[in-house]
Amino acid sequence: MAPVTSAASTTKIEDALAHLPITATIQYRKGETVYGPDRSSMNIYLVVAGSVGISRIADNSSEVLFNVVRPDELFGESAFLGDPWLAERATALETVKLMSWTVADVDELMERRPRLAVALLQILARRNAELTRHIASFATDGVERRLARSLMYLSERLGKQTEDGSVRMISFTHSQLSSHIGTSREVITQYMNRFRKLGFVTYSRSCITLRKEMLRTVLGEPSVDTAVATN
Amino acid sequence: MAPVTSAASTTKIEDALAHLPITATIQYRKGETVYGPDRSSMNIYLVVAGSVGISRIADNSSEVLFNVVRPDELFGESAFLGDPWLAERATALETVKLMSWTVADVDELMERRPRLAVALLQILARRNAELTRHIASFATDGVERRLARSLMYLSERLGKQTEDGSVRMISFTHSQLSSHIGTSREVITQYMNRFRKLGFVTYSRSCITLRKEMLRTVLGEPSVDTAVATN
Repeated sequence: MAPVTSAASTTKIEDALAHLPITATIQYRKGETVYGPDRSSMNIYLVVAGSVGISRIADNSSEVLFNVVRPDELFGESAFLGDPWLAERATALETVKLMSWTVADVDELMERRPRLAVALLQILARRNAELTRHIASFATDGVERRLARSLMYLSERLGKQTEDGSVRMISFTHSQLSSHIGTSREVITQYMNRFRKLGFVTYSRSCITLRKEMLRTVLGEPSVDTAVATN
Repeated sequence: MAPVTSAASTTKIEDALAHLPITATIQYRKGETVYGPDRSSMNIYLVVAGSVGISRIADNSSEVLFNVVRPDELFGESAFLGDPWLAERATALETVKLMSWTVADVDELMERRPRLAVALLQILARRNAELTRHIASFATDGVERRLARSLMYLSERLGKQTEDGSVRMISFTHSQLSSHIGTSREVITQYMNRFRKLGFVTYSRSCITLRKEMLRTVLGEPSVDTAVATN
């Protein structure tokens, strides 16, 4: 996270990474579990390369993807709760490289470097804000808007701008998308087909390409001038 | 928050309140906004008495209640993001008394008392876990289960055990309940009537009384032996 300040700020945005020692990286293959119900963890992780999906395990054992973590971001902060947290799973969405620290080590580091604690607090407060946005979307949006919003969110987190102004990101299965927005895979397939026919998205096994300015129209947001957006 | 340790813990649960200086209390009447889009805040608050509802303001301007804060708990941590956060509203659900500290003061305090930072981190990690549980419920539960779960959640946060084994809490309007679980007021009225006829809930203008062991059957959870539950 790059340090950011704003004129209106009274609190500086801290850079957690500046306070954490470098450790060896561990690699996980796509689909591998970093931690989960059958592999508990008391670690805080940093994504060095790739991306990691964090899902919550619901009472009916289905998994709901609620966060996607990208390079230079931390995850695993549920370890601060003091016990291994078995209702959450972290999965490599592609090949990932991670650094990790035990929560006990981070705890000790925070004693010596209080700014690390402030940095972690800010990360959690931001994550909180993202989670409540997701809740608000569940509470007020229909499936089509939820899907459009999810695609926008994922592309903001994982996408790369292409030359023609569209955004390309790693592929998500319809099953993963359905677990993010809480509907069946069949309904996702139906809406994704619709979005594809309208030219909002194209996708293959390896990547999804989005026309964000078109998707915005689903959300009723002012559609950016296409001539500008494609430059 | 009382300090709690567990045999399996590697991290002690810290008590934030032990690290915060006492300030004068401010009183808010039921329905009053503590902070919101039209009343920005850079404060962290402690509930001394009463309860406060935290809602997220959705894109369509409707408000989604996502958290209820009770005595000895903190709220307002979005102030750590560094700018006033206008997509959130804190409202007194009944007469409340609050203490508050500017985020700049808390920041300074954390420099001197790193355990305060750890305590705040733990509060945020726990809140995150609650938010993801709410998301999982939205993603996997129908309206009836969501309502049952919300009533259980609210009663765990705000309820008092009565002599006959039921739990009593302050009243929520059907409109507030609908904003918590993301459906219309009409649908809530329909399910609340159903729960009332089944004897799961009774309610008046001032309070709701719940038979939690009955509500659990909606969630398919093992119904506690009523003979024990009512003792």
